[in-house]
Amino acid sequence: MDLYFSPLAGSLAARIALYEAGAEARFIEVDPNTKRTPDGSNYAAINPLGLVPLLRLDDGSLLSENAAVLQYIANRFPESNLAPTDELGRARLQQWLSFIGTELHQRLFCVLRDEAAPEGTRTHTLMKSEPRLTYLNDHLSDREFLLDHFTVADAYLYAVLNWSVATRVSFSRCPAIKEYHRRLRIRPSVARAFQEELFLYRAKPAAHCAA
Amino acid sequence: MDLYFSPLAGSLAARIALYEAGAEARFIEVDPNTKRTPDGSNYAAINPLGLVPLLRLDDGSLLSENAAVLQYIANRFPESNLAPTDELGRARLQQWLSFIGTELHQRLFCVLRDEAAPEGTRTHTLMKSEPRLTYLNDHLSDREFLLDHFTVADAYLYAVLNWSVATRVSFSRCPAIKEYHRRLRIRPSVARAFQEELFLYRAKPAAHCAA
Repeated sequence: MDLYFSPLAGSLAARIALYEAGAEARFIEVDPNTKRTPDGSNYAAINPLGLVPLLRLDDGSLLSENAAVLQYIANRFPESNLAPTDELGRARLQQWLSFIGTELHQRLFCVLRDEAAPEGTRTHTLMKSEPRLTYLNDHLSDREFLLDHFTVADAYLYAVLNWSVATRVSFSRCPAIKEYHRRLRIRPSVARAFQEELFLYRAKPAAHCAA
Repeated sequence: MDLYFSPLAGSLAARIALYEAGAEARFIEVDPNTKRTPDGSNYAAINPLGLVPLLRLDDGSLLSENAAVLQYIANRFPESNLAPTDELGRARLQQWLSFIGTELHQRLFCVLRDEAAPEGTRTHTLMKSEPRLTYLNDHLSDREFLLDHFTVADAYLYAVLNWSVATRVSFSRCPAIKEYHRRLRIRPSVARAFQEELFLYRAKPAAHCAA
């Protein structure tokens, strides 16, 4: 299995999931600016949208979008218990993956990281996102994880919350989110994935906000 | 099963899926402005974010987010074949549900329907969305549906593409999307769901863009 990633992009979640599963995978870096891989290949020829993560499965087929990639990894390594298998539990996982993807990743952080966005966008976006952050904070206030144990939704949420630093989003009014982020940061799979990608990110700083 | 919906919002997709499945369900309208249901209840007390769709399952638990709601309906009525059951097919379905939710619903149409968005947002958003629409158009150019048969992802895509009228998004450079939308419109479950919600929408016109 190959994972196309950019350092500290949304694809960090898939790396965390693979580490949790102890899975063998090849990690192929995509430069978010030039859209080139280390061997000089044009990533746009592989994924026309240029977004990461992208998973190349063992049969050669390609899978994109965090929600799909993360559930695929969880299904592929069931012994790691990265996703509930009962009907309602799986539905709940999908609910959180979708919430993170639409309300946080896309609506909040991708907009804040878009340097070409019209003036006023930042204030407007933060205002619109406030109820979403409050909702998440309330949910996390008496829970260690989004569901009753660590799942791929936590990997995704962690990767997205990391962008709060670069985008100067404060969680001062969301102490449960802040505490959750701090807890996850020291989880071995998360710490390892973050440190490795931070190293790569610093080697080539750029605007990283791919899917 | 109860479906909380607003006329012609994203929840139209769940209604289509329920009609496809021939499922018994109670449809509870949420006024997108007042957030009240017909009996005067405050919907925010049920769903703090005020978004639709929301499914109340037979055990009373609540499920939100289109990707989760639609897959739940598909799983609950397997004989309607609204979702692939093989691993790769299901992953592909999740990929499209996520693409529609993040790139089209959230990034394109919700932004265009936001009347309070800063000046310049429309032009910027349309420019950023162009590669996404081209990608979708290319995918649909030789296919009847997103996958090899009608699935809940088509129900979702149809519901989202409907907003192109209100937001004046032209598909003149995306003939395959235009043709796909036209084909789906005459599918019996789709035509029935659309006509019923159009009737309700016209009875109470408002800005409808909920999840």
